[in-house]
Amino acid sequence: MPTSPKKLITLSAFVRYWIVRMTTAAQSGHLTSSLSAVELMVALCFGGVLHYDVKRPRHPGNDHLIFSKGHASPLYYSLWAAAGAIPTEELLTFRSMTSRLEGHPSMRFPYTEAPTGSLGQGLSIGVGMALHAKYITHRPNRTYVLLGDSEMAEGSVWEAIQLAAHYKLNNLVGIIDVNRLGQRGETMYGHRVQAYQRRVAAFGWHTIVVDGHKLPRVVSALKRAARSTTKPVMIIAQTVKGKGIAMLENKNGWHGKALHPEQYEKIQDEIVDPGTVRGQMLAAWRVSKQSTSRKKSYQFPEVSTRMSVREAVGHALAERASQDASVIVLDAEVSNSTKMDIFKRAHPKRFFEMFIAEQNMVGTAVGLGRLGLRPVVSSFAAFLMRAADQIRMSQYAHAPLLYIGSHAGSSIGKDGASQMGLEDIALFRSLRDAVVLCPSDAYSARALVRLGLTHPGVVYIRSTRAETRTRYTRSDTFQIGGSRVRHRSSQDVATIITMGVTIDEAEAAYGELKANGIRVRVIDAYSIKPLDVRTIRRAARETKHLIIVEDHYPDGGLRDAVLQAITGMDVSTDHLCVGREPHSGSPAAVLQYEGIGKRAMIQTVTRKHA
Amino acid sequence: MPTSPKKLITLSAFVRYWIVRMTTAAQSGHLTSSLSAVELMVALCFGGVLHYDVKRPRHPGNDHLIFSKGHASPLYYSLWAAAGAIPTEELLTFRSMTSRLEGHPSMRFPYTEAPTGSLGQGLSIGVGMALHAKYITHRPNRTYVLLGDSEMAEGSVWEAIQLAAHYKLNNLVGIIDVNRLGQRGETMYGHRVQAYQRRVAAFGWHTIVVDGHKLPRVVSALKRAARSTTKPVMIIAQTVKGKGIAMLENKNGWHGKALHPEQYEKIQDEIVDPGTVRGQMLAAWRVSKQSTSRKKSYQFPEVSTRMSVREAVGHALAERASQDASVIVLDAEVSNSTKMDIFKRAHPKRFFEMFIAEQNMVGTAVGLGRLGLRPVVSSFAAFLMRAADQIRMSQYAHAPLLYIGSHAGSSIGKDGASQMGLEDIALFRSLRDAVVLCPSDAYSARALVRLGLTHPGVVYIRSTRAETRTRYTRSDTFQIGGSRVRHRSSQDVATIITMGVTIDEAEAAYGELKANGIRVRVIDAYSIKPLDVRTIRRAARETKHLIIVEDHYPDGGLRDAVLQAITGMDVSTDHLCVGREPHSGSPAAVLQYEGIGKRAMIQTVTRKHA
Repeated sequence: MPTSPKKLITLSAFVRYWIVRMTTAAQSGHLTSSLSAVELMVALCFGGVLHYDVKRPRHPGNDHLIFSKGHASPLYYSLWAAAGAIPTEELLTFRSMTSRLEGHPSMRFPYTEAPTGSLGQGLSIGVGMALHAKYITHRPNRTYVLLGDSEMAEGSVWEAIQLAAHYKLNNLVGIIDVNRLGQRGETMYGHRVQAYQRRVAAFGWHTIVVDGHKLPRVVSALKRAARSTTKPVMIIAQTVKGKGIAMLENKNGWHGKALHPEQYEKIQDEIVDPGTVRGQMLAAWRVSKQSTSRKKSYQFPEVSTRMSVREAVGHALAERASQDASVIVLDAEVSNSTKMDIFKRAHPKRFFEMFIAEQNMVGTAVGLGRLGLRPVVSSFAAFLMRAADQIRMSQYAHAPLLYIGSHAGSSIGKDGASQMGLEDIALFRSLRDAVVLCPSDAYSARALVRLGLTHPGVVYIRSTRAETRTRYTRSDTFQIGGSRVRHRSSQDVATIITMGVTIDEAEAAYGELKANGIRVRVIDAYSIKPLDVRTIRRAARETKHLIIVEDHYPDGGLRDAVLQAITGMDVSTDHLCVGREPHSGSPAAVLQYEGIGKRAMIQTVTRKHA
Repeated sequence: MPTSPKKLITLSAFVRYWIVRMTTAAQSGHLTSSLSAVELMVALCFGGVLHYDVKRPRHPGNDHLIFSKGHASPLYYSLWAAAGAIPTEELLTFRSMTSRLEGHPSMRFPYTEAPTGSLGQGLSIGVGMALHAKYITHRPNRTYVLLGDSEMAEGSVWEAIQLAAHYKLNNLVGIIDVNRLGQRGETMYGHRVQAYQRRVAAFGWHTIVVDGHKLPRVVSALKRAARSTTKPVMIIAQTVKGKGIAMLENKNGWHGKALHPEQYEKIQDEIVDPGTVRGQMLAAWRVSKQSTSRKKSYQFPEVSTRMSVREAVGHALAERASQDASVIVLDAEVSNSTKMDIFKRAHPKRFFEMFIAEQNMVGTAVGLGRLGLRPVVSSFAAFLMRAADQIRMSQYAHAPLLYIGSHAGSSIGKDGASQMGLEDIALFRSLRDAVVLCPSDAYSARALVRLGLTHPGVVYIRSTRAETRTRYTRSDTFQIGGSRVRHRSSQDVATIITMGVTIDEAEAAYGELKANGIRVRVIDAYSIKPLDVRTIRRAARETKHLIIVEDHYPDGGLRDAVLQAITGMDVSTDHLCVGREPHSGSPAAVLQYEGIGKRAMIQTVTRKHA
């Protein structure tokens, strides 16, 4: 039974009332940004549009609702109160330490689909969820994303818009709340809704312009949107910031502000407690249990002497996906270089080309990861930096996400500094509990990919371009927080700790030094975060001299991780790293220029121990 | 005298010949991506369009030419050879260790306007240069940006497009080389030039579609572009990747590849050595020496007991700009929060609103910085992450760039994790030679802003939301690589090393401990990179116990910097940092939850020294 127009008005009053109440109670929060979108969201949730089982927020037949304008959280939480999902009293805990209702929606609130609050990211998450329904599960679920007009200035939004059109995501509906005012004043286009309409339409979307406070019109726009057959749909709603409270309406200077108690008193007759009222959502879609697609068998090849880590990563992912149907790979138009084309050939339906738009790629992965898949995000290590903020936010998604950055380090050589990932370890180490791994050969790459695909959170694998010597076998074991001691003796005078391409150099240095009667320990610290503290400390104790070598800039990488492990120990350390601005050249020449090759290692050892 | 059509053809043959020669010699480089844009660039440089004094690459009357598709560097360098700027023999050093001609244009080559190679950034740099001519110097220089079709997928390009239209940059001309093929295959729109035309026009640009290999048509398009009065102009050129060599033309699989010597032999009759031929550019514009605008006086206020660092930063910038006309501030629609509105009110003509588009903001700053200004880039610390790749590239621009990230740390409290910059120190420390500063009160903020505005490279200042106690005076001295010892005695049992908002907490802890007869040293490590190693080492030696406290995630921040300073020393360390996923709450409650407040410091001291 459809909700009556009158009841929608009552529900809007309920939601508005509680938005004001909860922000006043918190003395904080985005009151006016919430008020502008009340009718938009009440129409969506209770106007016979959204399919959702309120009792089961993770039901696979639920539509998805993402607040890209996460600061409108008072509206978001009030909607769920109107749906009967949470008690109204809980709204009054908003923004307090013990509340699930944080300033911006976090995963602590069970209805949150994905964390938002850094603007311009929600539509990408929606793209991931819509891709999931359209291409993976073939289910009827729709994805709705509420966008602010200010955040339309973020390039990431246009990346999502273009990709959604490319993949014909007719199950994706964006709703722009054009309330004219950003944080510090008017947006670039103010109330010119046609400016948005023209741009979004040019990018291949179906667009509907609507008065965002007229409930029946919004309901009808949403129902029209649901009938789209090939295009994603953008509803562009003209609204009034602060709608419903005269002193706030369309006024600058109220962004992110709550009413003072005295102000609250004054507007009492504008908001009326509507008592208990419950909105009904449409029942969740009936979905059949997902048939596990028939798995294509894929074998990691036998590797004799050499293979690049990037190639091994491609094989390892393809192999793993033949055992685990949840593995899905996204790549940013570089699959021939990252070797994700190996995966693509093996599992074409589980590979999505994301073009050169890394930010949207990460957002899409968050959407897929939230729905139970194991997305793998692939580009050059240098270019994953492009999505650093999306990567930052992804740590709050509590989803499995495997990032693979190829062509890391100065060892790529000729392309020069712009293509070299030299801050990538620092970036991923800086995330609170990310895992950072760096394989040095084909078999360690295989093993680390497998570990990366079982970890529940964010994992980064640093992958490299050059072929490296095969040093491990299929049966060697690796673990998150582990390391491999490549060479050890009781006469070791120093320990070289490194990972990735420079293991080849370290082993060559080891050989030459040994021939000259000098023994060094060599540790493959393939797990940079967490680090194998025990093995490192033992080496420090036994050899008293650590030489940390990394194809990375001086700060934030392996050295910093090792120093944490050995604080307070009586040990001398040397650090060989990319200390000079890199120069185009052959990989060998660049390694020598930067002083991270075999020669530099030997010199560092012999300077002290010859 | 205009170049004859015939000579333009000869110049194109010259450029094409050398593109092939130099990539074959290097056995590396982007041959086909260079060949597609030969006529576009020959027409621009030698068709009577570009004003440029080849002998003086930094002449203020030169137009600007930026290769956003930096991988077309063989074309770029060959053009300068055709202009007589460099000898053709030098082209054969391409991509070698001793050459100025790197894989992607770097500042080692004197004609490079700004480093490119990470796609999608060049148009933003062009926006900066066009803003400079239109709004700062009021000069007739025009800025030309060559774009690849693949990179149009980057959201950052659309940020630049929207901002250029907003600021009516009719002196900015983009040229899209629509050669259909990206790196691993066809782009999203292939040869459908109308797809680009429609999108760019919807964003408010004047657009011209042209056959990119017809020299007279390209020349005429460029001349038409130069007549635009209010809109930036995009020339959308349909081209053939690999143009001029039949075996390469419009073929997939040739991206980033050079011809093998045998292949080179086979195409000998397709490329003919045209001998010595020189193209003429139009003379540089006659520009008068820039009149230094009359400086508005501005005084940093007297601060009695408390002020937030962000507010002090606003005053300090306004004061400094009243002495130095090169200071210019960009902010991403948060100036009321970052307090850049203080600057804006004082110097409205030196403030540019960049809206919520951080990537373009940084690229714009690079453009301004390259032309001799001192751009200041401002947003929340968390949201500067959005531009991490642009920030990464900016370290290669060899220009003064001051980044200010406000609302850093969990101490912002109620807004929650999405708004908290907790990886910002790690991000900026990871840049090879960036400076990272963090003031703790109004006067240190003033001093550090002044230092930041004299440094020749990248500087990051971490700014905070909360009011902090005033502990310094106007005459206290600060320096890059310095620190301030807040409390010291001969009985110190431990040293608290911290910076920013937690100095207030450390001083409170100091007071309480002292009252209980326990003396601790307190160091304000306001210069995180470089760190004041001597003072830290002395404290380690004298107190044997360092307690490092930072409102930042565990890795990549102050702790890692301190550990580098004290390697091998016999000292125990504790680290108090944001170790738990933050929660919305009052600042005091959040600091306590994370264990970085006064109480946690006192406990850490007394656990060992009570």
